[in-house]
Amino acid sequence: MKKRIYLDTAATTYVSGDVLQAMMPYFTTDYGNAASIHSFGRDAEKALQISREQIAKAINADPNEIYFTSGATEANNWILRGTVLNHPSKRAIVSAIEHPCIMETCADLAARGCKVDYVKVDSDGIISVADMVAKLSKPAAIVSVMTANNEVGTIQYLNTIANLCKERGVLFHTDATQAIGSILIDVKEMNIDALSMSAHKIYGPKGIGALYIKNGLKVNKLLFGGGQERNQRAGTVNVAGAVGFGAAVELTIRDANINNTRIKGLRDYMIMQIEQRIEYAKFNGHRNQRLPNNVNFSFSGVEGESILMLLDMAGIAVSTGSACASGTLNRSHVLAAMGVPDELNQGSIRFSLGRNTTKADIDYTVNELVKAIKKLRSMSAIK
Amino acid sequence: MKKRIYLDTAATTYVSGDVLQAMMPYFTTDYGNAASIHSFGRDAEKALQISREQIAKAINADPNEIYFTSGATEANNWILRGTVLNHPSKRAIVSAIEHPCIMETCADLAARGCKVDYVKVDSDGIISVADMVAKLSKPAAIVSVMTANNEVGTIQYLNTIANLCKERGVLFHTDATQAIGSILIDVKEMNIDALSMSAHKIYGPKGIGALYIKNGLKVNKLLFGGGQERNQRAGTVNVAGAVGFGAAVELTIRDANINNTRIKGLRDYMIMQIEQRIEYAKFNGHRNQRLPNNVNFSFSGVEGESILMLLDMAGIAVSTGSACASGTLNRSHVLAAMGVPDELNQGSIRFSLGRNTTKADIDYTVNELVKAIKKLRSMSAIK
Repeated sequence: MKKRIYLDTAATTYVSGDVLQAMMPYFTTDYGNAASIHSFGRDAEKALQISREQIAKAINADPNEIYFTSGATEANNWILRGTVLNHPSKRAIVSAIEHPCIMETCADLAARGCKVDYVKVDSDGIISVADMVAKLSKPAAIVSVMTANNEVGTIQYLNTIANLCKERGVLFHTDATQAIGSILIDVKEMNIDALSMSAHKIYGPKGIGALYIKNGLKVNKLLFGGGQERNQRAGTVNVAGAVGFGAAVELTIRDANINNTRIKGLRDYMIMQIEQRIEYAKFNGHRNQRLPNNVNFSFSGVEGESILMLLDMAGIAVSTGSACASGTLNRSHVLAAMGVPDELNQGSIRFSLGRNTTKADIDYTVNELVKAIKKLRSMSAIK
Repeated sequence: MKKRIYLDTAATTYVSGDVLQAMMPYFTTDYGNAASIHSFGRDAEKALQISREQIAKAINADPNEIYFTSGATEANNWILRGTVLNHPSKRAIVSAIEHPCIMETCADLAARGCKVDYVKVDSDGIISVADMVAKLSKPAAIVSVMTANNEVGTIQYLNTIANLCKERGVLFHTDATQAIGSILIDVKEMNIDALSMSAHKIYGPKGIGALYIKNGLKVNKLLFGGGQERNQRAGTVNVAGAVGFGAAVELTIRDANINNTRIKGLRDYMIMQIEQRIEYAKFNGHRNQRLPNNVNFSFSGVEGESILMLLDMAGIAVSTGSACASGTLNRSHVLAAMGVPDELNQGSIRFSLGRNTTKADIDYTVNELVKAIKKLRSMSAIK
């Protein structure tokens, strides 16, 4: 059988066996619509409630602060549109390295007469506190800063930013899609007002996510219709998906220490190997303030796409920039904001490790990477 | 084991065995993100393409006219906001009996300075052509009329309405959520410009739906972010859900004749039984121009909620109004628009039959219904 090594867990993961098993009854026997008041419906609603509790517990929120969505993209669209459009300031402050679903929503808000300010990051991808303070000198509806970056894995000092927002009475939102299970999040302790998450990055199913909204905050709706999710998000709730999401969160948190320790070891081994064996490899992101599963390098003189193709032919799945953006073949706005020059930006590759990744996978991948870079550089030298 | 009879298939269905089997690999082995360009991603994209073809075929659309959404609610929100807000007329025309996700989106559009007109229906729930013609005398961005009503099952004469729209150059959208598999839909033949659908009403999973948008039409985005769905709907696509949706549509269309004939027989038997055995039972909806699985009655002198509770205690799941609305315990706007007086409106029950419904289920249900109505009427007589 052909070798298949999946180093793209930041794009998506498989659904773990335990999660899938938890979901199954909700496809076949307990298939009620959670909005129905008969017993099938009540059983579905009970299942949603358990899932809500599992998710809430993971971030120390209350279950009634968790609203199911179709994923993090919807959650991020919702919180931005739902706070900015009707706010007197019509202003949002976001970091320069947010996910496209924040960036594109901001672009649309700007087109609708809102104002968006982008806070600078340093060369490691860490938000500039000075710039954030400056941007916060004028009123804003919301500050949105991702917990950890999807491309380079840099983890922000959320406490600092959240406290600045709290002092000024500005709503603080974080996109924690990449961070759940990797970073301990306590929304109460950390003064987080809203938080987006997704199941399919943590061995849960695609098509389900959630938005945590602190009790008492007024956020306008994104989807209108039935009275689901305490009348805040219309649409029949994806019960099986929500059950899988709850199980995935619980298992991820339960096993976080053991998984993260092991994966972090492999990550650092991989970084060391690449730096030792490949010349002109630029490490991207912060060395320590970093997701346990993220390795990101730029390789001088070669295109990321070409590396990806050669690794793919060797059975290795990796990403250039984020998966969501890679369909569009753009340069990474994240690396650009970190000051990585265009030539290196185009040669960047993200390796994201997972629960199943082994040392043998890393050894094989680094060997193939060495070969690929050598081949591509020799080709570009011929030109 | 306790009897459980599910007569609420218009609220949601179980996922059929064949559909679930089609979905399974996309949870466990073929779990790529369809936006990724490596082999895992390409396999996912191929699966989406097959699903798109299955769905397109069912309505005679082109596969690239199908956009996956999280369900019909999102599809309906999308088509309305995406056409009305930026149209010079800022005007929508919808029927008075649309689903809450159309009605509430219209209410929000009205709050944002748009104009919405509601076309009358007759006592059977059929759209007034004269009123539609009158409403169409002024420019509008869109006409949206559901193919078949979710509460009373009335099927519209879509051709007539679509042709009126075509003559006037107004975009015609239909919410076909309840109709797929029950009514033959040919978007080309019928001049339908946009159409919403959902998997979980046709034995597919919850959390996935689609919007068909005719090639060449300009509809603004609802969800911003990555370049998924030809850059029209951001968010990692729910691959397993989409695969299940495609399979569900294909199986539903394949078996439509045999299922509909059988279910229609049971429907008519149930209607006859109720009319013979229960006094002051008002049949709701059109006798012939009706979904094969829908039975809707109002029972004078009793509340629908109370009937629902007694039937639920007897193991029978039914609905008052639509499931989406029943969480909110409102009177049915559909029955109100059809001229059903308040007293009867509050006593309405929807029975929606399914693939597994048997004659024995109907007999048991009618017996329990007779007992429930008798009990409730005697109680209200005591008061």
